[in-house]
Amino acid sequence: MNIDMIRASAARAEGHVRRTPLLNSHFLDEIAGRRVWIKPECLQHTGSFKFRGAWSALSSLNPEARAKGVIAYSSGNHAQGVALASKMHGAPAVIIMPKDSPRLKIANTRAYGAEVVLYDRAGESREEIGAKLAEERGLTLIKPYDEPQVIAGQGTTGLEIAQQAAEAGIENADVIVCCGGGGLTSGIALALEAEAPSFRVRPAEPEGFDDAARSLAQGKIVGNARPLGSICDAIVTPQPGDLTYPIMQRLAGPGLVVSDDEALQAMAQAFNRLKLVAEPGGAVALAAALFRGDEIEGDDVIVTISGGNVDAEMFERALQTRG
Amino acid sequence: MNIDMIRASAARAEGHVRRTPLLNSHFLDEIAGRRVWIKPECLQHTGSFKFRGAWSALSSLNPEARAKGVIAYSSGNHAQGVALASKMHGAPAVIIMPKDSPRLKIANTRAYGAEVVLYDRAGESREEIGAKLAEERGLTLIKPYDEPQVIAGQGTTGLEIAQQAAEAGIENADVIVCCGGGGLTSGIALALEAEAPSFRVRPAEPEGFDDAARSLAQGKIVGNARPLGSICDAIVTPQPGDLTYPIMQRLAGPGLVVSDDEALQAMAQAFNRLKLVAEPGGAVALAAALFRGDEIEGDDVIVTISGGNVDAEMFERALQTRG
Repeated sequence: MNIDMIRASAARAEGHVRRTPLLNSHFLDEIAGRRVWIKPECLQHTGSFKFRGAWSALSSLNPEARAKGVIAYSSGNHAQGVALASKMHGAPAVIIMPKDSPRLKIANTRAYGAEVVLYDRAGESREEIGAKLAEERGLTLIKPYDEPQVIAGQGTTGLEIAQQAAEAGIENADVIVCCGGGGLTSGIALALEAEAPSFRVRPAEPEGFDDAARSLAQGKIVGNARPLGSICDAIVTPQPGDLTYPIMQRLAGPGLVVSDDEALQAMAQAFNRLKLVAEPGGAVALAAALFRGDEIEGDDVIVTISGGNVDAEMFERALQTRG
Repeated sequence: MNIDMIRASAARAEGHVRRTPLLNSHFLDEIAGRRVWIKPECLQHTGSFKFRGAWSALSSLNPEARAKGVIAYSSGNHAQGVALASKMHGAPAVIIMPKDSPRLKIANTRAYGAEVVLYDRAGESREEIGAKLAEERGLTLIKPYDEPQVIAGQGTTGLEIAQQAAEAGIENADVIVCCGGGGLTSGIALALEAEAPSFRVRPAEPEGFDDAARSLAQGKIVGNARPLGSICDAIVTPQPGDLTYPIMQRLAGPGLVVSDDEALQAMAQAFNRLKLVAEPGGAVALAAALFRGDEIEGDDVIVTISGGNVDAEMFERALQTRG
């Protein structure tokens, strides 16, 4: 993994991946006590940054592999990213999803043109099903984060941040990144190492699912006590990736941890002050900027809103949360 | 009014007014039966396009007039736009607002640095109060739409649309614009006359407040039966402006009219598919694109989301509206 891969990924993404703006609001600056800048990846195609990594992976395949198709395991943002990126490349995509996934997610993934294969979480192994299909059809597996071309794609977010920060005159910033498996965090860290080396990259996670923060603090990969159960489901993973962790260890940290209630408050602020729809996991970095100011150094703080795929019920819950 | 004023306004706005992106969604294309492109002015500073016109007016004042300050009558998006543009210019701003305005709107306008003067709708004339203050302090009145520099500022939206449409390969589009007094509609129409003359500009309004559509159909300015009472309050005005109407008559129409329920449905689609917060009046153009397809000619349709300043209660109502 290096900056050249990210630059090459950015060149392949030109005209296909959205360059999201860098936004701000006087009201958020006031809450945070410093200038707050927002990189809204909820405005990316499919509503999350995952489209960047998916586009990067698809566009790096050789034509023969692409024609055979790709496969991914996901019920969430990665599924939609791979489905749409495949459709735009004219490549078949198979997405393995749990049978009990929300119907809307299954419908959306199909609407992006993917073949959805459902499995029973209790009695079936998605890996076995996936391996069989991949072998039969010659499909290429696109992992959600521990995959160099995916990390390179997420890193294009960092190239944009560096350029937009320079245009805005930002010299000394903490860059807080919503962190699941670490693909976005490590990609941005690599990009900023090259393009804005004075910036500090900080992963943000929800309480109880702060595997990246604890791994960075302990100097080794550690997992979470529970596999599931956060409202920030989009960014919950068992532990940092084998590829992403060493990059984060070298370039990112310390981690920031926020409560579910703070994530919901940040969603309400994004609604009121930015006119953006953030999902709970996509709001943890903004929550850290607003409510963990004593753990932040920079005069400026730049945060990702990593996704906006939230249902109406959860969004209404956020709007009813009062700080 | 001419294109040179709009180009000069754009030059003054560089680095201060946000260049909003041009977004799309496969899901919206499917509903509309054609490609739908969104110009999200809800992402503009202060959450609406009104900041463009306010910036344009403030930046065109001579330094002496600017130092004395400006005055505006508004309880809504124009108030916030003038307040922030004035603050950024270091110019005093007085905003005359009804005493019974929502407290949040008053607080926001003050937070943007303006002096808010409250009046009693029943017993006082805001024009008298304003004229007295303006004379005492030498303030310049910034009208919300019937003012050349304001129209020029709104027209910068059209310059961006022309450029972004060319980049996206759009050749034959209806451009649907949320229409109140006609400042945004006439500004965009003038810009596109010069930069994308094959595009058709179409004002969109809510039922019962379709003064622009009826004025264009009858060839003369006509007003609405009721002055108030739409959920689309941000774009309700008594009738088209004396400056904006002749421009619209020459370059825009016919008008498109949608129901309140369709505006709410469009808000829900913007939430689900674009991750954007639209206010009811800001969603009428998207509603027209989605639900009035038989009145639209182009292979592509470009719509403004003119603003996103909506409270949580109204937004929840939109999320609960099912088409």
